[in-house]
Amino acid sequence: MKPKKAYPAAITIFGAKGDLTRRKLIPALYNLFIENHLPALFEIFCVDFQTVDEAAFKNDLLAGVNEFSRNGKAEPSKWADFAARISYLQGDFTKKETYVSLKSKVEDFEKSSKQRGNRMFYFAVAPRFIEVIAEALHTRKLCSNKVHDRIVVEKPFGTDLDTARKLNRFLTKRFSEKQIYRIDHYLGKETVQNIMAFRFANFVFEPLWNKNYIDHIQISVAEQVSVGKRGGYYDTAGAMRDMIQNHLMQLLCIVAMECPGAYKAEAIRDAKTKVLKNIRPFTTPQVFKNVVRAQYTAGEVDDVPRIAYRQEEQVSPESNTETFVALKMLIDNPRWEGVPFFLRTGKSMTRQSSVIVVQFKDSPHKIFKDDIVPNRLIISIQPELEISLLFESKVPGLQMKLVPVEMDFTYQEAYTESLPEAYEALLLDVLHGDATLFMRADQVEAAWKVVMPILDAWKKSPSKQLQFYESGTWGPAAASNLLKPYAKEWFRLPSRETVKKLAVNK
Amino acid sequence: MKPKKAYPAAITIFGAKGDLTRRKLIPALYNLFIENHLPALFEIFCVDFQTVDEAAFKNDLLAGVNEFSRNGKAEPSKWADFAARISYLQGDFTKKETYVSLKSKVEDFEKSSKQRGNRMFYFAVAPRFIEVIAEALHTRKLCSNKVHDRIVVEKPFGTDLDTARKLNRFLTKRFSEKQIYRIDHYLGKETVQNIMAFRFANFVFEPLWNKNYIDHIQISVAEQVSVGKRGGYYDTAGAMRDMIQNHLMQLLCIVAMECPGAYKAEAIRDAKTKVLKNIRPFTTPQVFKNVVRAQYTAGEVDDVPRIAYRQEEQVSPESNTETFVALKMLIDNPRWEGVPFFLRTGKSMTRQSSVIVVQFKDSPHKIFKDDIVPNRLIISIQPELEISLLFESKVPGLQMKLVPVEMDFTYQEAYTESLPEAYEALLLDVLHGDATLFMRADQVEAAWKVVMPILDAWKKSPSKQLQFYESGTWGPAAASNLLKPYAKEWFRLPSRETVKKLAVNK
Repeated sequence: MKPKKAYPAAITIFGAKGDLTRRKLIPALYNLFIENHLPALFEIFCVDFQTVDEAAFKNDLLAGVNEFSRNGKAEPSKWADFAARISYLQGDFTKKETYVSLKSKVEDFEKSSKQRGNRMFYFAVAPRFIEVIAEALHTRKLCSNKVHDRIVVEKPFGTDLDTARKLNRFLTKRFSEKQIYRIDHYLGKETVQNIMAFRFANFVFEPLWNKNYIDHIQISVAEQVSVGKRGGYYDTAGAMRDMIQNHLMQLLCIVAMECPGAYKAEAIRDAKTKVLKNIRPFTTPQVFKNVVRAQYTAGEVDDVPRIAYRQEEQVSPESNTETFVALKMLIDNPRWEGVPFFLRTGKSMTRQSSVIVVQFKDSPHKIFKDDIVPNRLIISIQPELEISLLFESKVPGLQMKLVPVEMDFTYQEAYTESLPEAYEALLLDVLHGDATLFMRADQVEAAWKVVMPILDAWKKSPSKQLQFYESGTWGPAAASNLLKPYAKEWFRLPSRETVKKLAVNK
Repeated sequence: MKPKKAYPAAITIFGAKGDLTRRKLIPALYNLFIENHLPALFEIFCVDFQTVDEAAFKNDLLAGVNEFSRNGKAEPSKWADFAARISYLQGDFTKKETYVSLKSKVEDFEKSSKQRGNRMFYFAVAPRFIEVIAEALHTRKLCSNKVHDRIVVEKPFGTDLDTARKLNRFLTKRFSEKQIYRIDHYLGKETVQNIMAFRFANFVFEPLWNKNYIDHIQISVAEQVSVGKRGGYYDTAGAMRDMIQNHLMQLLCIVAMECPGAYKAEAIRDAKTKVLKNIRPFTTPQVFKNVVRAQYTAGEVDDVPRIAYRQEEQVSPESNTETFVALKMLIDNPRWEGVPFFLRTGKSMTRQSSVIVVQFKDSPHKIFKDDIVPNRLIISIQPELEISLLFESKVPGLQMKLVPVEMDFTYQEAYTESLPEAYEALLLDVLHGDATLFMRADQVEAAWKVVMPILDAWKKSPSKQLQFYESGTWGPAAASNLLKPYAKEWFRLPSRETVKKLAVNK
């Protein structure tokens, strides 16, 4: 590791009293700090509306680190060093005074650093504040250096294509595209980053990575959690906006993209955007045929009772918002012509399991009597980071009998250290000015373009075709039917023990 | 498992007092018996020259089972059942009386079985007895049923092309080719059989299995043992005849063959023979350039001193016999044009390691800064049965840094039962009349044709270019130079721990 820590960093977090700051941002920054990835000179300005006692505020951040950091409890002396760089700034995001005092704090820091460093402004705020803050940063010239000043915006990037376009237009009028970091933390996950390495650093996979050898691809992000306390926001969004438009589309891009000319932000983002533009547009009849939307009812997850979505806090008792989506899409380009991509996501499901399955075609020429299970490449993102290849192997014994077995590589087995969190990778990239893993305006809009016909069709008939699935299941039967005739069921990662048993007993 | 045990079996072993019978054949038959693979009715007739007490003979066989069987010590009651089917027949292989009494014993067994079953005659004898016994079996009509009667012949099949041809002609005049089972126990090994499953039951490997994607292939059978007590035979043979002409050539065939039309003996043997016929013939200058021959000198293996080959029992002190061969060959067909195959075998080497390495080419388009190690498929045959794929993966951490890691499938981890020995698989195949894993006359001759120019060149100048290597090393430097520019060193299977360490520390 050779951290590029030349420039001092003035890090501002808007929404410092929020959940994201406490659970993700501060633990990530603290881990970057203790592992020497942050520049020698940095300060963190925490801005929020509430009046708080600074010591109490920092203690609460420490409690967050202790609870959520992958490295466990903070070491007191290191935390003290780190916390000394944090200051709390009470301020209304809509008031000029907030930015005046922020500016003087940032400039004080830069004066004491004797160097104009990088400024990062993290928008950990509700969407309604994005434009307000952006406008103020612009007007107050807090973020006007095109090379050194950056804003980080969290999803949602708009609630549909129009609002996304408006937001992009608003931001790009005030900042250059290179200053805007639209974060999708899925792209910071180790396995997701590894997919690119896997595809483009290994000569053996790329020749197979097309319609000639691949039957279909499944991308599934199953969540065990319910909507929890996010009901207010979620009920206006739904799984399509909350998960498919961003995370799953981004996974799709990485899996389906052409090899970029170079491992550089613009080349990679060009290649991804191209995938989105090549997705065959959904017509309304296709929406009703190829997209399944569903909502969870009461049930049990891991033997614990769960209430129905419509009973959740801040959710309308007549809500038709989907908590589950499964869809089939096609990409119209020479590589993927005719290969279906199946995307699925849902809440309150049996267990957490984010997995990408590349199902290869069946062999055109069979010389063995046994039924042969076609090869399958499984990229597991959560909860295990693992890449495995299912292949046919001879069962030890006196006959030529075949059984599918797995060749696998597990991160946890190979690497004993804990893996960096997505937010660590992404925050450091912002400080380094590396936008590779962030979404460009046209990427976000292209993703919205894909899902708009679906959202529009649903809007016209909100309750039509809304299905229900019991909490603690894998979703409605319609989601499995969607796969036919390509597969009977969505792939589920079996435990390794199961695989071994299958192999031995067959 | 559905053993085909319909036919009673009369099994005759010529050379019953020999090492092979005690170490391999009886333990294999006993394991087949206890695992219910043998027919309900069978008898084993053990023929040899010595006069022995039958009880003592059987006790000696039992000691052999206890020492060499993969299942450990025999269970007394099962052994008693098994031993009751064994009878010893003292007889001179050159005398008519031997076959007269053998015939009456076999016929008695068949009468009592009320069914003419299969007869298997196993030639566990010195080469000079093969024709004698074959002639007698023929004359006495002991092995005249073309469907049910089979002979099993151990290597060497001749000592050169001429003698191999003569032997084949001699045998095929007396028996049909389908009655003749030329055994190469390497072909009975699980991993070797698995290579065919791996190649032809998995659609993802076959598209890569050619000159477009493969840089070169290494087939290495390193033995830790010295020539031991086999000096008398070995000094007349050498590594080329003892290992390359048979085992390594057969491994080469399985790796390089075209997909057979069906998993059937003739189709597979046709495909293998075709490989041998496509090997580019060695000219004398090419022999001196592309073939390394060497002999071990004194040294240490696992800290135990070893004497030089020339000091071994029954070996000439001026011997120029090679105990090590490394060679580079090309296969002139559309699949393999220009892809070198490197074969290596030797005795008294660092450790036992039989491994096939398929080295894929480097990626034509590189987008990552790191040096990329091209993909490599490693099929380990001994001591571990394992298939693994070396691929580039992102090192967990905050940079896009790549390191080669292994995706692997290990038989021992997946299957807890002990794997059947090669001889078990092969003896059962003989009883089932399945010649898939045995060598046909034309296959043996084609293999001799490949090595004859090498043997002839060496014969003309026996000491020319004979190199020496210290016992306990991986052979002479010339063997590594042979690989240039394709590789720096012969592939050595690292322990899994080493791989992990490399990955973490890089």
